[in-house]
Amino acid sequence: MTTQEVADKLVKLCSAAKFDEAVEALYSPDVVSMEAGAPPGQSRESKGIDAVRAKGKWWVDNHEVHSSKVEGPLVAGSHFTVTFKLDCTFKPQNRRFQMEEVGVYKVVDGKIVYEEFFYSM
Amino acid sequence: MTTQEVADKLVKLCSAAKFDEAVEALYSPDVVSMEAGAPPGQSRESKGIDAVRAKGKWWVDNHEVHSSKVEGPLVAGSHFTVTFKLDCTFKPQNRRFQMEEVGVYKVVDGKIVYEEFFYSM
Repeated sequence: MTTQEVADKLVKLCSAAKFDEAVEALYSPDVVSMEAGAPPGQSRESKGIDAVRAKGKWWVDNHEVHSSKVEGPLVAGSHFTVTFKLDCTFKPQNRRFQMEEVGVYKVVDGKIVYEEFFYSM
Repeated sequence: MTTQEVADKLVKLCSAAKFDEAVEALYSPDVVSMEAGAPPGQSRESKGIDAVRAKGKWWVDNHEVHSSKVEGPLVAGSHFTVTFKLDCTFKPQNRRFQMEEVGVYKVVDGKIVYEEFFYSM
């Protein structure tokens, strides 16, 4: 798949809140995922698809998604970028919140090898 | 200015290859600029508007821009993202090349305080 095709499929799956399906379909075994921040003592970086799956599972298990809006993609060579606008509830605290973030992705040989998220904390 | 207004103005100025005007109009004195990579021994990071001006001046002095296409912006909270598609000539070597990159920006109090670029090298 081209960068454009990977980007379009990611947007389609994430718009339907199918985040785990996106990882299985589009991510490289060696993907690196970088968050905007991390709790003290923890890393912003997750290395490898198992670490990314674990991060995603924690997120899905702990959040109820009321709506997931994905804008983009904008494609530039091997990279693309999208924005996410999520309305969700953090289930352990029954706390509803909205978040908006930019995601940047790098594609090599039809798979996502790097992702990084930008948001204010 | 809101994030959307800063983003729209950046797109307008950069589409006209007015990169230096964009810095003067939109950048914080304390801006940090991060490139995708740097030559050995040099930093990816430029700190402060004078360092960003110097980087921009080197770029403008050494490149002839044949076309500058900016797509976006996509806005998410205090961040926005665009893509750049440049067709230019590196004047010292009279070498024409095309580059495509993603830019991510953070806006605080109506000024750009952080920018980061993603492209393959």
